[in-house]
Amino acid sequence: MDISKLTDAAELAKAIPHAQALGMSFVEIGQGHAIMQLPYDEKLIGDPQTGVIHGGAVFALMDTCAGAAVMSHPDAKGYTATIDLRVDYMRSATPGQILRTRADCYRYGRSVAFVRAVAYDEDEARPVAVANGAFVASKGE
Amino acid sequence: MDISKLTDAAELAKAIPHAQALGMSFVEIGQGHAIMQLPYDEKLIGDPQTGVIHGGAVFALMDTCAGAAVMSHPDAKGYTATIDLRVDYMRSATPGQILRTRADCYRYGRSVAFVRAVAYDEDEARPVAVANGAFVASKGE
Amino acid sequence: MDISKLTDAAELAKAIPHAQALGMSFVEIGQGHAIMQLPYDEKLIGDPQTGVIHGGAVFALMDTCAGAAVMSHPDAKGYTATIDLRVDYMRSATPGQILRTRADCYRYGRSVAFVRAVAYDEDEARPVAVANGAFVASKGE
Amino acid sequence: MDISKLTDAAELAKAIPHAQALGMSFVEIGQGHAIMQLPYDEKLIGDPQTGVIHGGAVFALMDTCAGAAVMSHPDAKGYTATIDLRVDYMRSATPGQILRTRADCYRYGRSVAFVRAVAYDEDEARPVAVANGAFVASKGE
Repeated sequence: MDISKLTDAAELAKAIPHAQALGMSFVEIGQGHAIMQLPYDEKLIGDPQTGVIHGGAVFALMDTCAGAAVMSHPDAKGYTATIDLRVDYMRSATPGQILRTRADCYRYGRSVAFVRAVAYDEDEARPVAVANGAFVASKGE
Repeated sequence: MDISKLTDAAELAKAIPHAQALGMSFVEIGQGHAIMQLPYDEKLIGDPQTGVIHGGAVFALMDTCAGAAVMSHPDAKGYTATIDLRVDYMRSATPGQILRTRADCYRYGRSVAFVRAVAYDEDEARPVAVANGAFVASKGE
Repeated sequence: MDISKLTDAAELAKAIPHAQALGMSFVEIGQGHAIMQLPYDEKLIGDPQTGVIHGGAVFALMDTCAGAAVMSHPDAKGYTATIDLRVDYMRSATPGQILRTRADCYRYGRSVAFVRAVAYDEDEARPVAVANGAFVASKGE
Repeated sequence: MDISKLTDAAELAKAIPHAQALGMSFVEIGQGHAIMQLPYDEKLIGDPQTGVIHGGAVFALMDTCAGAAVMSHPDAKGYTATIDLRVDYMRSATPGQILRTRADCYRYGRSVAFVRAVAYDEDEARPVAVANGAFVASKGE
């Protein structure tokens, strides 16, 4: 994978209005993996009593990061889309802490790419959520 | 289910900062089902070239609506949380159109409630996404 | 869809050694849907104390039926394979009763077909399990 | 976890008629993880033309192994049941080879335990399938 692909993915993410609206940014993009983060913010809160962020915000971060992992895979030609994604919520993210997620594209097939992502806050030993999904694979023309 | 529960669920949704930030609102809440909507908005866009909204925004709407369906179930005592949720994306939502979702809690067990949700835009015959998940069931003391 | 396709699907199912070994058979095949059944048998038991059949046998029935639903879709050209499948278990199947499942292919896209299946015993009002999955779509040459 | 629990789990598996009918056996049981195997057999075949085993047989192995991983968890009190399970199929198992699966219970909560399982044949570097699910957690009286 050449550097231009890494840069493309990061730029693409910056160009996603919804990712920008929530406050997501890239920490790292590699050959089939990506790390993104989402700083705590009031507009992400799902439970006003506890201040815990909404599962939808966790999902949006994991979905975006998973798509970036697929796009950064050596076999990829840039385009992808989520076919399906399953998220398991292990616990609430701690209010006030940055949420990070790492996604790995562990299989890039003819028409489908499989991805796994893990989300965690500052207590990295206890994941907040795990996501597993299938994405559109496009090997170019 | 009494009216107070319906009102509670609707008020609760209004009180969710993330739901408010994205622009969600309730269309209907019944005995184990709910309908919510999310008007098209630039901050929801996932693909700047086509204007298609982000899968994460679709998920956030379905997750919130599914939780409301669980809370409105006759056997429920108010509290719930997503255990896991799987979303299948059938097609892109048409840019500019309102996204709606209907969620049904079709099984409320001792510790787990199962929910199915369908999201669609103005072309109701062709769903945009389908979600299936397990939520925490709480039957009260 | 022509009759030959219906017959092909039924014949194909008969030709599946694992389906035969468990005792599965077709009740109905239509244009994108299928109904199959699995009579109760000791070799299917998962819990020797209660006589409840194994979740794996329920899954095998639903997976096979879902594949048949995809193959019988008007847009299909015969071949398919499971990409992913999620099964939600609502309750135990009642020991001694026939297990039936109905699968519907509700979306047949360019490369992916989506299917939903429901399994039930003689109490059809209370499903035993629900499955949702993505299958390989092949529209022919 | 005491030795008796390990032995109990192995004995329990032996006592499952469906696991016996398919030919499953334990390779290893630890504190929250388990490894099982399923030798290739004609009755497991899903595709008579290629000899590839049925996805349902792969699932049955993973589901059983996942349940054993939950039961062997230090916090467990023996009983469990599958709430939901999602399987992603990466590729066909190679005909003639033993199928193995390793399951890890990576989170044992108050009412739900989460498990991940990987199935592979002799080419361990390329998994055949990955499963993620939620199981009933029972911490005893």
